[in-house]
Parts: sequence; C-alpha cells; structure tokens
Amino acid sequence: MSFGVENLPYGVFSRPGEAPRVGVRVEDQVLDLAPALGDPVFASPSLNAFMALGRTAWARARARIRRVAASGDPRHLIPLGDVTLHLPIEVADYVDFYASLEHASNLGRMFRPGEEPLKPNWRHLPVGYHGRAGTVVVSGTPIRRPWGQRPSFGPTEKLDIEAELGFVVGVPTALGGRAGAFEDHVFGVTLVNDWSARDIQAWEYVPLGPFLGKSFATSVSPWITPLEALEDARVEGPAQDPEPVAYLRRAAPWGLDLTLRVELNGEPVSAPPYRDMYWTPDQMLAHMTVNGASLRTGDLFASGTVSGAGRPGSLIELTWNGAQPIELGSGEKRIFLEDGDVVTISAATPGGLSLGEVSGTILPTT
Amino acid sequence: MSFGVENLPYGVFSRPGEAPRVGVRVEDQVLDLAPALGDPVFASPSLNAFMALGRTAWARARARIRRVAASGDPRHLIPLGDVTLHLPIEVADYVDFYASLEHASNLGRMFRPGEEPLKPNWRHLPVGYHGRAGTVVVSGTPIRRPWGQRPSFGPTEKLDIEAELGFVVGVPTALGGRAGAFEDHVFGVTLVNDWSARDIQAWEYVPLGPFLGKSFATSVSPWITPLEALEDARVEGPAQDPEPVAYLRRAAPWGLDLTLRVELNGEPVSAPPYRDMYWTPDQMLAHMTVNGASLRTGDLFASGTVSGAGRPGSLIELTWNGAQPIELGSGEKRIFLEDGDVVTISAATPGGLSLGEVSGTILPTT
Repeated sequence: MSFGVENLPYGVFSRPGEAPRVGVRVEDQVLDLAPALGDPVFASPSLNAFMALGRTAWARARARIRRVAASGDPRHLIPLGDVTLHLPIEVADYVDFYASLEHASNLGRMFRPGEEPLKPNWRHLPVGYHGRAGTVVVSGTPIRRPWGQRPSFGPTEKLDIEAELGFVVGVPTALGGRAGAFEDHVFGVTLVNDWSARDIQAWEYVPLGPFLGKSFATSVSPWITPLEALEDARVEGPAQDPEPVAYLRRAAPWGLDLTLRVELNGEPVSAPPYRDMYWTPDQMLAHMTVNGASLRTGDLFASGTVSGAGRPGSLIELTWNGAQPIELGSGEKRIFLEDGDVVTISAATPGGLSLGEVSGTILPTT
Repeated sequence: MSFGVENLPYGVFSRPGEAPRVGVRVEDQVLDLAPALGDPVFASPSLNAFMALGRTAWARARARIRRVAASGDPRHLIPLGDVTLHLPIEVADYVDFYASLEHASNLGRMFRPGEEPLKPNWRHLPVGYHGRAGTVVVSGTPIRRPWGQRPSFGPTEKLDIEAELGFVVGVPTALGGRAGAFEDHVFGVTLVNDWSARDIQAWEYVPLGPFLGKSFATSVSPWITPLEALEDARVEGPAQDPEPVAYLRRAAPWGLDLTLRVELNGEPVSAPPYRDMYWTPDQMLAHMTVNGASLRTGDLFASGTVSGAGRPGSLIELTWNGAQPIELGSGEKRIFLEDGDVVTISAATPGGLSLGEVSGTILPTT
C-alpha cells in the first residue's frame, strides 16, 4: 500500500516539451489532475494555488481523486518513468526547528564540550531559525561540495546530512495575527535533507546561528503527503517537562508515527524514529506565529534532525564527530560524506504508507 | 537636490482603483514609468521584472528617465500626495548582517557580560543570518507590539529599532556558482528598520540565532535608490585587521558615505554614520554566495544596525539597555518604545541626496 489509494501524495511533473503541472502519485503512475478533475487550479507549476484554497477544498479534491484512482480508469495516468518531477511548491519562507531532544543534546555535547548540552531555553520553546528558501531543491538535484571558512578557507571536510520531516503551509495568516488549528493551515508533509557543512557551521554560528554551513542546499522529496493521508499515523507527542505555556499546549495529537530510513550508497545506516520528537509540529506552528509573524502559502517548516537513541539522523551523531567511523559493506569507512556518495532518506508509517524519498549525490568542488 | 535628477529612486505606487505599478520619484511627484517610457516591464506590481534585466538595461532606463525628468514635460507625473506607495520589491530571501564593529561590540557587552565582546569569528567574516522575508513591510505599516517568552510569556517590554541599509539583488546566480562584481548583481539601496524585541531575542537566540524577536516585522522605505545614483557617495571601507581571505578582499570601494538620522516622535535621537561600517556590502555579497548558494532577483540583504561611536542605530545601545534613559523635548523619557511612538529613519549623502525615509508607529498589543 506504499502509494495506493490511502496515500495519494501530490507533486509537480512534466513530460519532455510539456509545462510542469500538478499530479498525484497512484502506485507507479502519476494522475494528471487538471484534465482528470477538470480543474484548472492544477494546471500550475506548483501546488501553491491549490494549497491556498484550504481544508474543505483539499478534502473535496482528495475524495474525487480517490474515486478516480480506485475506478481503474486508465485515462490521464502516466508512468512515473516517463516524467520529470519538479520542486512541488514555491517555497515562501523556510524555517528549521531543532525539535529532537536526542539531537539537540548530542550536538550540544559536541559543539560545546564541558557545558550543559541543552541550553536553558530548549525545554521552554521549540528553538528554530530561518533558512534559505531559494536553495530548497527537489530530490535528485546534485549537491556541490561547498567552500567556506572552517576557519581556514577551503572545501568543507565535514559534509553531513540532516534527516527531517517538513511541513508545508497552505492557508496564510495576516500580519499581527496568529495561526489557528494546525490542520487548518498545514497542507501536508514532505521529507527534508538539510545538508550541513559542520566545519563551516561550527566557526560561523556564534552568535547569530547557522548561515553558510546550511544555505548551499536543502533537498525535499517530490511528493507532499496530505495530512489526511496520515490520520492513522497520528500519536500523542512525548510528555513534556516543564509543561509548556498555554500557547504551546497541544490541542490534539500531532505526533506522527513514522520511521525514517537513511541510506548511504544504498546501504541502510540509520532508522530515526519520528514519533519520539519532543516538540510536535502543531507546537512549532503555534510558536512561529505567536509574535504576530504572518504565514504565507508555501511556507516550509522542518522538524530539525530526527534522532532517537542510537538511531540518529545525521552522520556527526552516527560517527560521534569522527570518533566512530561507520563501515560500509564494501569495506569502505565513512565519517562524513565523500564525493560521489549518494544519500537517500525515506520514511513510512507502521502500516506501510510511504512518504517517498529524498536523494542527492555529492559532486566534487569546482 | 534631495529628489532631483541626480537621484531618481524607483518605487511602486497606485492611485485609488488603479493597479500598483513602477514609478520613479522626481521631487514631490511620481513619474508613471510604463506610459512615460512606453515599456511594459514597468506595468508590474514590483520592481523585480525590471531588476532582473541587469546593468545595461538599468543604465539605459535611467538615462531615458533623466531626459524625461529634466524635460519639464508634465505628462505622466503624479503628485506624491495622490498616490499610495507599496512594498517596492517582491522579497525573495532576506539576510541580515552584523557589520558594525561598534554595534557588535556593544551588543556583546550587554548580552554576554564578562566575556570578550566580539566573538573570535567576527573579524574574519561578515556574520549574518536569514530573517523572515514574508514580514518585510513598506514604510508606514503599523507595527503591532509582539508577544513572546521573555522568558515569562507576555508582550515585549523591550521593543527596539535597528537602523540599517538594505541592498537589493537584481541579477541572480545559479546554484553552485558565486556572485561576480557587486555592481553586476545589486540594483540598489533602501532603508531598513529591523524592529527587535530584545527580551524575546535574549531568551531564544542561543544557539540558532534570532527568530521571533525579529520576525514580527521589518520595515523598508518605499524607494530603492539605484547604485548609479550613489557614485559620488562611494568611499573606501575602513582598514581591516586581519586582512580578510581572498574572496573577501575589496575589488572596488563600496563603502558609502551616508548619514542616517533616527527620529523618535519627531525628535532626532541619533545620527549613525554608515561610512565607518567594518564590512562593506560587496564583502557581504561575496560571503553570502561563496558556498554556492544561489541569488534570486528580489533578495534583500541588510547591513545590520549602523552604529558609530556615540551615534548608535538602536535604542538598546542609546540607553545602554535602560541604564541611561533618553529624555524627549516633551519631558518624557524613553528606554524602549512605547505604544503610539513613531520612529522615522532617513539617510542622506553629504551632497544632500536623500534615500527617503522608513517610518512606523507602534500599536498596542491585542
């Protein structure tokens, strides 16, 4: 059932010589939505126009798509192998959180040895920051090894991944307002690989946060899974101590029981569990707008690295910053990424519903 | 000569019932560019399409506009009082730097007492971070006092300004490439007030940088002054020690001799000098793209608070975080902003060429 009628994620596709437009994945085919539903909102190079319509329109479209997909009608279905997949959304702002207690503690131990690993604010609010929206790219885009000050100037020697979930905003808010219910604003979920140059990041990030160590590329999967498809995966988030202030209290369970799978050159190296993430995405949304900051259609916010005990979502944790290299089946060892390496992150629910995958190959520096 | 034919900044305007479109300010009038030049690129609600055309097109348009403006031909000139001014650009990514040695040292002393005020990286690279592009607003937009954790939850009690210059990118770069010469990419300059809630910022900013303490609003002036208008204001930046690495060495003088003027409720409170800024904007551009991050048309990068000795661009410095309240002519004192306060920032060259102003009024929290 990975991509059966229970799933039906949205993406943007084209065939050679055709304009990119919105489709839905049905098994190993793409349903061309504009002709299939007779709705011109889908004849668009991004999901944004459709996402802006809101929850009632999303539910109505999904019900119609399920009927078409279940009907066996072959019209408007195109084999995946015949299409190119594009960045599915026009990204407005990109925010990255830091919601895994395990990840934040691990990074604190490595970046600030001898100090308390968690900063005093961490359990009181979902720490986050703005990333570069213009360098969000679709899965398959090659990743050029970045240069930077490490502090000596050269190509990064600590190129890493961050396996994350991303949440895509459909319904905006006005400046000075706050977001309402999570499911009234957020359209769906995607996979994110927030590529990171750890040596550049470590030198630059004090006091204003990560910048060039992250801004060279952030990859997302070509499929946005609508929240409706994830109903069965919803779980309570973990208990929180201290209890957060009122605006951060959970009104409904928006933890998600998804297991990520990180593959390096085709070999599984970690399987980070999303369900244990300390801060849930509804809390991230409430936090992001509590100061009156507006949301736009196409805003993308990501969870931060998904790490569970012994199952981290980054190489710096997996190899403990180089102290424990991992050995691949070929006998090769890895601390950080080498040129030519291919990283693929996928995720699925216990029931087998798939979020697809986000993949990228490291190119040598120029 | 504030807005004479030597200046001619670009903006976006409309009259009631009309679509917003590009104009140029000529003294106290707006020249309606699409009909005046017979060029449909200006019949657009932002400057982006024109800015994407590049330096040759910018120079050609400016030469034609100068001839029209100098001709005395009254056609297509509309009194400023008859128009509404809009956000002149569609902001792609927004980056804020921290380029004033004085400001960075002052903030370091206040936020990290007992430590070395400048972090070890500060003299080696222009420290910067991404801000929220979706909350960049045009001058005149009221600013609602934000709520947040300070760390107790409530309306900010330390609402501040940051007087800055902003630089607007016209010509993009490809992912994996680097920017060329500053003047081949940057279209022009605008005034920025990066409103800041210091209590929220101080609690949240470790370790990933400012987030909600800044993201509620950033105001820009309605006019973008093209680089060509600022030729006479160009100066060498200050000497730098240590000498920066190669990609940060200055190829041409892009320091700018501009004096900012900060007014609170109509009274001048500071006059920060831009010419002393340690990192010049060409260095900021080179840094932002050295890792291969792409530029998009509409990217906005700002200098960070402009502070010179005794002439800071923020209230936290002016009042030394409350230790030295300022007294207004009315006898009222201020540490941070109160509801109803109006802040206006302007800037001019020694020759009197004006960048206009960016203004905002504080609204009470709701």
